[in-house]
Amino acid sequence: MTKVSDILKYIESIAPRHMAENWDNVGLLCGSRNQTVTKVLVALDPFEGVCREAAELGAELIVTHHPLIFMPAKSVTDDTSIGRSIMMLCREGISAINAHTNLDQTPGGVNDVLARTLGLHDIQIVNPVAGDVPYGLMRMGTVPEQPLDRFLGTVKESLRCDGLRFVDGGKPVRKVAVGGGACSGGMMEVLDAGCDTFVTADVKYNQFWDAHDLGLNLIDAGHFHTENPVVPVLAAKIAEAFPDVAVKISETHHDCMKYY
Amino acid sequence: MTKVSDILKYIESIAPRHMAENWDNVGLLCGSRNQTVTKVLVALDPFEGVCREAAELGAELIVTHHPLIFMPAKSVTDDTSIGRSIMMLCREGISAINAHTNLDQTPGGVNDVLARTLGLHDIQIVNPVAGDVPYGLMRMGTVPEQPLDRFLGTVKESLRCDGLRFVDGGKPVRKVAVGGGACSGGMMEVLDAGCDTFVTADVKYNQFWDAHDLGLNLIDAGHFHTENPVVPVLAAKIAEAFPDVAVKISETHHDCMKYY
Amino acid sequence: MTKVSDILKYIESIAPRHMAENWDNVGLLCGSRNQTVTKVLVALDPFEGVCREAAELGAELIVTHHPLIFMPAKSVTDDTSIGRSIMMLCREGISAINAHTNLDQTPGGVNDVLARTLGLHDIQIVNPVAGDVPYGLMRMGTVPEQPLDRFLGTVKESLRCDGLRFVDGGKPVRKVAVGGGACSGGMMEVLDAGCDTFVTADVKYNQFWDAHDLGLNLIDAGHFHTENPVVPVLAAKIAEAFPDVAVKISETHHDCMKYY
Amino acid sequence: MTKVSDILKYIESIAPRHMAENWDNVGLLCGSRNQTVTKVLVALDPFEGVCREAAELGAELIVTHHPLIFMPAKSVTDDTSIGRSIMMLCREGISAINAHTNLDQTPGGVNDVLARTLGLHDIQIVNPVAGDVPYGLMRMGTVPEQPLDRFLGTVKESLRCDGLRFVDGGKPVRKVAVGGGACSGGMMEVLDAGCDTFVTADVKYNQFWDAHDLGLNLIDAGHFHTENPVVPVLAAKIAEAFPDVAVKISETHHDCMKYY
Amino acid sequence: MTKVSDILKYIESIAPRHMAENWDNVGLLCGSRNQTVTKVLVALDPFEGVCREAAELGAELIVTHHPLIFMPAKSVTDDTSIGRSIMMLCREGISAINAHTNLDQTPGGVNDVLARTLGLHDIQIVNPVAGDVPYGLMRMGTVPEQPLDRFLGTVKESLRCDGLRFVDGGKPVRKVAVGGGACSGGMMEVLDAGCDTFVTADVKYNQFWDAHDLGLNLIDAGHFHTENPVVPVLAAKIAEAFPDVAVKISETHHDCMKYY
Amino acid sequence: MTKVSDILKYIESIAPRHMAENWDNVGLLCGSRNQTVTKVLVALDPFEGVCREAAELGAELIVTHHPLIFMPAKSVTDDTSIGRSIMMLCREGISAINAHTNLDQTPGGVNDVLARTLGLHDIQIVNPVAGDVPYGLMRMGTVPEQPLDRFLGTVKESLRCDGLRFVDGGKPVRKVAVGGGACSGGMMEVLDAGCDTFVTADVKYNQFWDAHDLGLNLIDAGHFHTENPVVPVLAAKIAEAFPDVAVKISETHHDCMKYY
Repeated sequence: MTKVSDILKYIESIAPRHMAENWDNVGLLCGSRNQTVTKVLVALDPFEGVCREAAELGAELIVTHHPLIFMPAKSVTDDTSIGRSIMMLCREGISAINAHTNLDQTPGGVNDVLARTLGLHDIQIVNPVAGDVPYGLMRMGTVPEQPLDRFLGTVKESLRCDGLRFVDGGKPVRKVAVGGGACSGGMMEVLDAGCDTFVTADVKYNQFWDAHDLGLNLIDAGHFHTENPVVPVLAAKIAEAFPDVAVKISETHHDCMKYY
Repeated sequence: MTKVSDILKYIESIAPRHMAENWDNVGLLCGSRNQTVTKVLVALDPFEGVCREAAELGAELIVTHHPLIFMPAKSVTDDTSIGRSIMMLCREGISAINAHTNLDQTPGGVNDVLARTLGLHDIQIVNPVAGDVPYGLMRMGTVPEQPLDRFLGTVKESLRCDGLRFVDGGKPVRKVAVGGGACSGGMMEVLDAGCDTFVTADVKYNQFWDAHDLGLNLIDAGHFHTENPVVPVLAAKIAEAFPDVAVKISETHHDCMKYY
Repeated sequence: MTKVSDILKYIESIAPRHMAENWDNVGLLCGSRNQTVTKVLVALDPFEGVCREAAELGAELIVTHHPLIFMPAKSVTDDTSIGRSIMMLCREGISAINAHTNLDQTPGGVNDVLARTLGLHDIQIVNPVAGDVPYGLMRMGTVPEQPLDRFLGTVKESLRCDGLRFVDGGKPVRKVAVGGGACSGGMMEVLDAGCDTFVTADVKYNQFWDAHDLGLNLIDAGHFHTENPVVPVLAAKIAEAFPDVAVKISETHHDCMKYY
Repeated sequence: MTKVSDILKYIESIAPRHMAENWDNVGLLCGSRNQTVTKVLVALDPFEGVCREAAELGAELIVTHHPLIFMPAKSVTDDTSIGRSIMMLCREGISAINAHTNLDQTPGGVNDVLARTLGLHDIQIVNPVAGDVPYGLMRMGTVPEQPLDRFLGTVKESLRCDGLRFVDGGKPVRKVAVGGGACSGGMMEVLDAGCDTFVTADVKYNQFWDAHDLGLNLIDAGHFHTENPVVPVLAAKIAEAFPDVAVKISETHHDCMKYY
Repeated sequence: MTKVSDILKYIESIAPRHMAENWDNVGLLCGSRNQTVTKVLVALDPFEGVCREAAELGAELIVTHHPLIFMPAKSVTDDTSIGRSIMMLCREGISAINAHTNLDQTPGGVNDVLARTLGLHDIQIVNPVAGDVPYGLMRMGTVPEQPLDRFLGTVKESLRCDGLRFVDGGKPVRKVAVGGGACSGGMMEVLDAGCDTFVTADVKYNQFWDAHDLGLNLIDAGHFHTENPVVPVLAAKIAEAFPDVAVKISETHHDCMKYY
Repeated sequence: MTKVSDILKYIESIAPRHMAENWDNVGLLCGSRNQTVTKVLVALDPFEGVCREAAELGAELIVTHHPLIFMPAKSVTDDTSIGRSIMMLCREGISAINAHTNLDQTPGGVNDVLARTLGLHDIQIVNPVAGDVPYGLMRMGTVPEQPLDRFLGTVKESLRCDGLRFVDGGKPVRKVAVGGGACSGGMMEVLDAGCDTFVTADVKYNQFWDAHDLGLNLIDAGHFHTENPVVPVLAAKIAEAFPDVAVKISETHHDCMKYY
């Protein structure tokens, strides 16, 4: 019978702990290694709705990208959303595992899936960390040269975004970097690597202007939409590795933010 | 004849230095107090294009909200946009004055103008700092109760945004807080003050979700569009105070970020 | 019907939050304000055994002196004692309230009870913090002048310690200071207040020698035994304030440390 | 004729400076390298009574484990015990040498002597620092399997303690770690090394409970009694190395703390 | 009979402890409050030569401006000058008192004496700290308007300097500030107070250029020569207050630095 | 045609960037890499007078040792000397390059030139940093044994100082260390290297006394005079490397500080 510890070990084989940033919180954050698992719910975030969905499904484990606990908790009460989530998981006997920056950086993880989803060719790691298995945060690759407008259409459609925010760097699109989530701090690295276009999220006003001044096409496709493509890939891998476990992708989880 | 020092003194009478945050950089950041001024260019940002416009206009002064120098400069070269701007201003004999967080916080400043532009009633300071003239960052006021969707339309139209990003807190709109620029850190204050809706900018993924969990309608109307309404107001005040000076609003400055 | 929030409000009326140290964690640390309470378990510590006792008792609330969570939690798993405790509380629907340094410092709290238990007269706060209700950490009072050896007997008997550790300061006992738990850092304050004897806990080697060199009788009566006297007092107060609630003192909780 | 510098060199050959912690203060802390030495007094601590004993003995040098100066001195006056000690040493022409964490960590030092005194077999360094001569803080070794109670008797007798404080981890004693002085912070290391029992000193309330929860027999045998066994060993080594010098162990130095 | 504590109390009546900077070390730094005093040696610094002079004189106390111990001492050995000084004082039974920044700042202290020595009129504190007795670091006063060259002659002669270093600020001398020792960091305060000339010591290259650019005559008259004038004043005060004590000014202490 | 970037590249070939300290600011600090250069002005400091001289000369570049901007600039206005300098350079189209601690440390840089100027033999780096090209801050070498007085004459004459400040260490001069500018913090390194004499600048009172106590002849020959010898050497190198560029040494720059 499959246990939480088996699935944890598997996830940390495809997204090793040493690839996580120092400040990050990854692994088993709630529950018990010895828990038997028959059903797993996979989602980008372990939000309250996802926890409820897992309870209704009868899952014993949720696997997510973002951690259940990010700021270490001083209390666990139903005054806060995170408190309610932990209380529900404990009450229902559900464990929670996550792979965050380790999944961002590992080969085949968040950013490789994002790059493939956008149809990039010759995908490479931007500034890889050397080692047995090189890894790194951002990816880059090429597309057939095209006007920015055409590429924006591709991004929106392939990531299923409602909307995009972007700045036009004044160049056609040929070499594209991607960083799922809030990676706009990597702008200089991406330029130094020769890219003309950068797809990321959570971009701030002055960062759009920096891109403008540096001549970089900068596209904010949303935190959810740039990271969520990894969810079905991760679910499929777990399902393949554990044939006796029913793996389901959250139906309720989506982006709460909308465009108008 | 009007000098830079006269206009500086006037601006610091309507947006006093003590209202600026400690980390901020405000006042005369480039040029000379003794410079005679016949033409002023007013804009949200002292970006390179604005500096060029001032030079072409023959202005001796630019007045902006954002500071010319934010991170103290280790060099002034044409390798960077900020270096090119300073070089151009020095070469052309143009001074640069700004009022940043002091203009955000002062009565009649960025946030009062934003609240009025959105048509709020009974406008008040959220958590005012006591003193002879109370001040503070955010404002709040009321609108006739309405569905969020209707209010989104008002925001978009009155601020002339291309697009908006928002999360639906599940409540009708009645009591609205505003914080021009990146004020999403003030979400808890706004809720404690009894608001149901908050208009600000540069909101991040987890902040949208926090608003969702807390039941707050959170609207990101863009940094530029939430702050720019103060520009014509500021220009009109300077023009009224200095009848011998030609005051012009930048024609080239706009938001570089677009929606798709 | 009594709710967790009622008992929390009562406890914070006798041990106000502003009397807690900044670094402390007090109040409702687990569960729900709206929980109905019929049975309360009171103990010095919310350790695993106490949580289990509460579950077996059918209590909906535990009230303790030490906090359930001291180092903010990065995870809630059964790998650690604290994780197991939180999981058990959530599973069983038990809330947890504590009053720590606020209960140490408040009039009638840990240290007043300790001073009374030792039979001190004319009990006063050492270095009181001024205010409507003065408060402070340590207490001092007098006993009839006696040799140290006799006083040691009184301490051991009244606090029901197995053993004591002490240093003889070379003086008879007349003016005694008390600080339940680890208060040996207050030795200089106690001397400046004219005391000859100090009862506290968790004393270290060099602190015994400091006392020796300063001529202070220093008695380490154990952390548990110097703080536990407050438990029945606290239980009685809650029982009196909430006649409809059954209040029980933990039967399993004791000091794990023994003398040989 | 033997000089202070000769004895210093010898002590630093058996307890090399590089084995001391960065925060420590070791070596010649008072007096003169060129002082001729005919008599040495050896003690655990260079307290005032020990200095007086050295003066009465006519010793020109005291050698101790703990440093004469730990917190760097802002003054040297007879208002403090340390000031009186330094004044006495200077007045009487007595030098002071110590070996502290270097003597704790070196092979044959404080912790090896402690392990041997307790009768451990197959003594090894816990987590040795690699190098020509591996060293480290704690030692571990085996004893014939026995109930905790029997081992407590051995500890008390062999270290000549008045009393002990301990927590019962619920296991028989077989593999024992030792750390003279305040080493309870090493509890996790000791468990990871497979030990069931740990003898150290200056243990605090929460550390006893941690040991209890982790199933470790934890014995606080007192700072003095866990370190003092090294004193006769050190004295004997110096006497052997310097046949022309009279080496004496302090008769007055003992533990000031007592049990009741 | 006069004791060290009597003289300490007197010195702290004329240079109160609260006027010393937080980082400073003042008062009784070596010896014993109860020591009887028949002879005192007064000097600017408690250097080794001064300690030797005190011993030869048979003094029981030295009173200085600079502290015996500035960096707290980790050892007291004859390897260092400060160690040799402390050893000598302890051996000879000599106590050491100093008044440093409290003597700089108090009315009638280092800087008032310096101002009077230079012949300033209408002497005032620059930026006084308010209180019962206002105090502050620097003094300022006027001289009859004169060319810098003439004033340099006055400084050299009245302070008995071998040489001076100065920068010509391009102004005649009329309003002069003084700060004995290393006070060049106060340059902006002195200018804001309307001074044209500043006498201090330990001035660095860039500070000379700052003075040059700011149009301030800056004179470095040496640390010793700007502070030493207080020595005979202090000696005379002690002699007057304690008629039974022989007070002597050090004959050996001088500036070690020379001009060529 | 020579550009600023060509001269920058050349300077960083003789004083590589990696030889600069972390806190330093070196390279192109003002202007444009693409600027064509026909005339260069070389000086120790880029002070206002030097900038004016460059403008009058029609130079497009100034090359200095000290950086134009040391404390990063929060503004560029004519209220400050540095603001006026930057404004003048920008207005006149003059770029500014500097090599500071990289020029101090590189072979053939500030300190090698200083050592040669003083006539030292067998010049070596004190504590060289290993690498392809070893480098370091201070230099040392020998002179024929002579009394200090004779060597002082040599220093004064060869560096063209108005005056010197020194302390006599009580030894003849044989092995001399040099550190141009404020290097007195290197006193212990210099002694450990076996030197009897140290020529540097900006020495403070207590450092002169430290040298006195340590028996080191310490000579403060002024910041300007110990660093300025590198200026003609640097000018000559640039002139040789760029025959089409007119290289001139500043005529106006000198030390503002004088002796009296």
